Amino acid sequence: MKTQELVQILLDRKLAQFGDSFVNFAYSLALTRSLRQPVGTKVSDKALADAARKAGIRELLPRRMSRGDVSNAVESLVAYAWLHHYLTLDEVTAILERQADSPSDAFANLSEKILEKLMSK
Amino acid sequence: MKTQELVQILLDRKLAQFGDSFVNFAYSLALTRSLRQPVGTKVSDKALADAARKAGIRELLPRRMSRGDVSNAVESLVAYAWLHHYLTLDEVTAILERQADSPSDAFANLSEKILEKLMSK
Repeated sequence: MKTQELVQILLDRKLAQFGDSFVNFAYSLALTRSLRQPVGTKVSDKALADAARKAGIRELLPRRMSRGDVSNAVESLVAYAWLHHYLTLDEVTAILERQADSPSDAFANLSEKILEKLMSK
Repeated sequence: MKTQELVQILLDRKLAQFGDSFVNFAYSLALTRSLRQPVGTKVSDKALADAARKAGIRELLPRRMSRGDVSNAVESLVAYAWLHHYLTLDEVTAILERQADSPSDAFANLSEKILEKLMSK
């Protein structure tokens, strides 16, 4: 995948909307498995924007973007990867579970794994 | 499963919290598949409370409950069924997709299927 195509995915608003529900669910599932009891949570824009910075996604985006828009890029990326079968739900959850106490590190790590897979195609 | 055990599941607040993220994700996925483009949405308390009434869940609950609490019961039920492998994500999504234009009917139908499975065990 070329960088231009990746950036288009990162900026896709519909993917971000689906990604919002996917990200909250996948992280809730990771916590549920980690803590061995049901947990429901939302991942904050701040955590996702931090993840975008740590994983090198932020620098692919236009300079002037709100934190919400930067966090959308991570949601789009994760949604794209799952919808297009680059990762299964169990793989996503296992990666998030490793750093379940830090959502920004968990999503940075997940984003890096996804970027590797996408850019090697 | 005895009715008493079912009612305990319906009133489980932690299951409802996880269920909130699951329900929003599963319905977003059903719409995404139905419309063949990514959709992110939230299922309203009203739709879930209506589903509880249609599926006969409401009458299992204490008489004085807020709409939010009634909708939680559907979230708990769906979460329990998925976490305990009564239904796969694809099965949940396929059921929701059949009535994707009416979330209350979609979740009423899903709840009925789950109740059948639980009560026959």
